Amino acid sequence: MLKYQQIALEIEKHIEENELQQGDKLPVLETLMAQFNVSKSTITKSLDLLEKKGVVFQVRGSGIFVRRHKRRGYVSLLSNQGFKKDLKDFHVTSKVIEMDVRKPTQEAADNLNIGLHDDVYFIKRVRYVNGQTLCLEESFYNKSIITYLNNEIVSESIFHYIKEALGLKVGFSDMYLHVDKLNQEEAAYLGLKEGAPKLTVETIFHLTNGQPFDFSKVTYNYEQSQFFIQANNELL
Amino acid sequence: MLKYQQIALEIEKHIEENELQQGDKLPVLETLMAQFNVSKSTITKSLDLLEKKGVVFQVRGSGIFVRRHKRRGYVSLLSNQGFKKDLKDFHVTSKVIEMDVRKPTQEAADNLNIGLHDDVYFIKRVRYVNGQTLCLEESFYNKSIITYLNNEIVSESIFHYIKEALGLKVGFSDMYLHVDKLNQEEAAYLGLKEGAPKLTVETIFHLTNGQPFDFSKVTYNYEQSQFFIQANNELL
Repeated sequence: MLKYQQIALEIEKHIEENELQQGDKLPVLETLMAQFNVSKSTITKSLDLLEKKGVVFQVRGSGIFVRRHKRRGYVSLLSNQGFKKDLKDFHVTSKVIEMDVRKPTQEAADNLNIGLHDDVYFIKRVRYVNGQTLCLEESFYNKSIITYLNNEIVSESIFHYIKEALGLKVGFSDMYLHVDKLNQEEAAYLGLKEGAPKLTVETIFHLTNGQPFDFSKVTYNYEQSQFFIQANNELL
Repeated sequence: MLKYQQIALEIEKHIEENELQQGDKLPVLETLMAQFNVSKSTITKSLDLLEKKGVVFQVRGSGIFVRRHKRRGYVSLLSNQGFKKDLKDFHVTSKVIEMDVRKPTQEAADNLNIGLHDDVYFIKRVRYVNGQTLCLEESFYNKSIITYLNNEIVSESIFHYIKEALGLKVGFSDMYLHVDKLNQEEAAYLGLKEGAPKLTVETIFHLTNGQPFDFSKVTYNYEQSQFFIQANNELL
């Protein structure tokens, strides 16, 4: 982790621990430079990163302010740090239903840019929050990139393993959302009635070199899931 | 619009018009500098902007590549350029059901950081795509910021008016998503059955100074709406 990223994390931690609220003003640039003993360009990079992450907003000529979403128990759609971070006061668990090496479906092959004869790790799991079903997840990992997975890894955070153990750099992702009605199988796994509302989120995760490595399809229990997204200036 | 923003738009237009695909390589920095006759720092800012917008991705030591979502007819959740851009091959219209100046609900007042005795513009409209209902929209605008609205403006793009006519700078927004079942009123407006699935998106739009000016609640016809989100590196 680079210096400016470390400082960004420290500022974020400071905001959380002191429960600073939306609109609270942070110290001026000079104070932060002195506090962390770094150059102006480093602290500027830290603040730009925090702005991109939706932790602060900068008002030209006026200062740096805290940006916080106000509602508790919402899961960020733009974070793969997973539910554990957003739902940190909740108890999140996983149950692995299927895990094997197989050939991809046409849909998975298309989304992963691989052939029908290439191998993928297929993982199907149900995730729970406080004992209630949160979602049903089906993931296809390109086996030529994610060379090894086992039950233990899959029960915990797969992304943590990908980054820390395999040393891969996660770049960007494309997400597609649909709302529809649960089919019989999904309803059974989620403990809901067939025909109840569902949110399906398909995500294609890419490495920093643009190569897709994971195609996942997550079906959420609508009673348990609330999502937030923080959007910035440039995206509007 | 600043020079680097103009260039970013031109590059984006070039990608669209030539139908470049995900992974296609753009010219190297030096070529772009020469082509637009600008400094390295300007072209770097343009490319950073395009990267934030999800139009390109940069691979260190390798180049700049096109990033495109592949699926047609999906609406970006992170764009308030509205449906008109994403659904440009479709015919999008609005019908204004209510529009008046009133006192906010408790919920609207909380989200706009105003008092119950302050005035808001309330707008309720149904939006259609190719004659089918797309969504039911209820918006509360802080009248001390959005001082004037009329039927004509509301039938077109409100955000275009806010930026161009009122000269306001839109900063960031917080979005909250829920999936649930349509109530009777919503079902009637959307032409669906009561109890059918719905996606509700609540958004609080802020000016660049952090002041919230619009709280909107949009209920989507699940049969008509498919969304995409492009997420970057730093957000993961």
